[in-house]
Amino acid sequence: MRPFEEGLQSLNSALQEMGSLVAQSIHRSVLSLVEKNEDYAHQVLRDESRIDQLEIQIDDLATSVIAREAPVAGDMRFVVTAIKINTDLERMGDLAVNIVERSLSLMRQPDVAGFVNITEIANLVESMVLGSLESFVKRDAQQARSILTSDDQVDKLRNAIGQQMIALMQSDSSYIQRALDHIFISRSLERIADHATNVAEDVIFMVQGVDVRHPAARV
Amino acid sequence: MRPFEEGLQSLNSALQEMGSLVAQSIHRSVLSLVEKNEDYAHQVLRDESRIDQLEIQIDDLATSVIAREAPVAGDMRFVVTAIKINTDLERMGDLAVNIVERSLSLMRQPDVAGFVNITEIANLVESMVLGSLESFVKRDAQQARSILTSDDQVDKLRNAIGQQMIALMQSDSSYIQRALDHIFISRSLERIADHATNVAEDVIFMVQGVDVRHPAARV
Repeated sequence: MRPFEEGLQSLNSALQEMGSLVAQSIHRSVLSLVEKNEDYAHQVLRDESRIDQLEIQIDDLATSVIAREAPVAGDMRFVVTAIKINTDLERMGDLAVNIVERSLSLMRQPDVAGFVNITEIANLVESMVLGSLESFVKRDAQQARSILTSDDQVDKLRNAIGQQMIALMQSDSSYIQRALDHIFISRSLERIADHATNVAEDVIFMVQGVDVRHPAARV
Repeated sequence: MRPFEEGLQSLNSALQEMGSLVAQSIHRSVLSLVEKNEDYAHQVLRDESRIDQLEIQIDDLATSVIAREAPVAGDMRFVVTAIKINTDLERMGDLAVNIVERSLSLMRQPDVAGFVNITEIANLVESMVLGSLESFVKRDAQQARSILTSDDQVDKLRNAIGQQMIALMQSDSSYIQRALDHIFISRSLERIADHATNVAEDVIFMVQGVDVRHPAARV
């Protein structure tokens, strides 16, 4: 194997490790909330530093592949995509930490489970994350496009939870802190979905050389 | 001028235009809130599509400079930094739009100005944004480092506003929507500060070749 191919291979492996770890943290952050499980929460907090390490390592790998080898066309798009996806993955990891912080706060308060359904939005967001990562690994632009269509549904679910929680706060002020925690969790999930959408858009660009961001911005 | 220098010049100009436009949108979003000025709000909404266009244009310029010219060392770091800063600037533009949406919502409700001081956090965040952009233009790592120290103060101010707003909601449920709007505005400002911090970190990397992200992640 030539050194260039080795560089690309290392970059690919590091990104896959990063993707698996971030997906796992998101999954555990949701489980910590739904199952009131502190162990999952602490695992997410522990894995954050490994995710931060990988982010730096991936940027270094990408930069050195470009600097040493000046890749062209498809390989170049792969490396630029790697730099972008890397940033999105690290942010998703931060958002999993945000969810866990709220989940730990909720464990110390009486249950509001009857008033809010976080599972539906969480399942949808997790499937977007896994789908966007799989589309990257398989370089499957069609799968990536299918991710983009879920984003509106996530926004709708997040709005519904927001309205429910505002009504709950208005009905009884003792719910305010718990309702706010759920509002922030649903927003973190929505932002994770936005990052999964970014990843999918970057995969489409990488595979097809077509930029699908901001369709309205093209003149 | 060689074609390579032309490519770098175009990239630099486009990034400066993007930076000015985003800083202006942030400034107008705050003014729309503080002065209850709908015109500023609508200008921010209008400028979003220009920001989206510039994001795509800057990525295209950066990718083509790398692909055609294989820059080395300092020039390579400049181009990679451009790709990263570009993403942060576009997100800051989105956050200015979020602020404006809440500001328009607040214009339709009775005033809570006596209960919340958004000006202090807004001024600090704006100075971080302008400072980070100036440090990029001047390639001034020392100025960039001075930005990093403001981030904790922003977090403190945001927490203080959050606590104030929770107390307000608990005192009288008719404040809930207005208090939530202020909570989200202060969080958007905090996230803008996070992006300004990212820009400053990228400038330090560009100028000194030193990566200052996640110091705890270095082993």
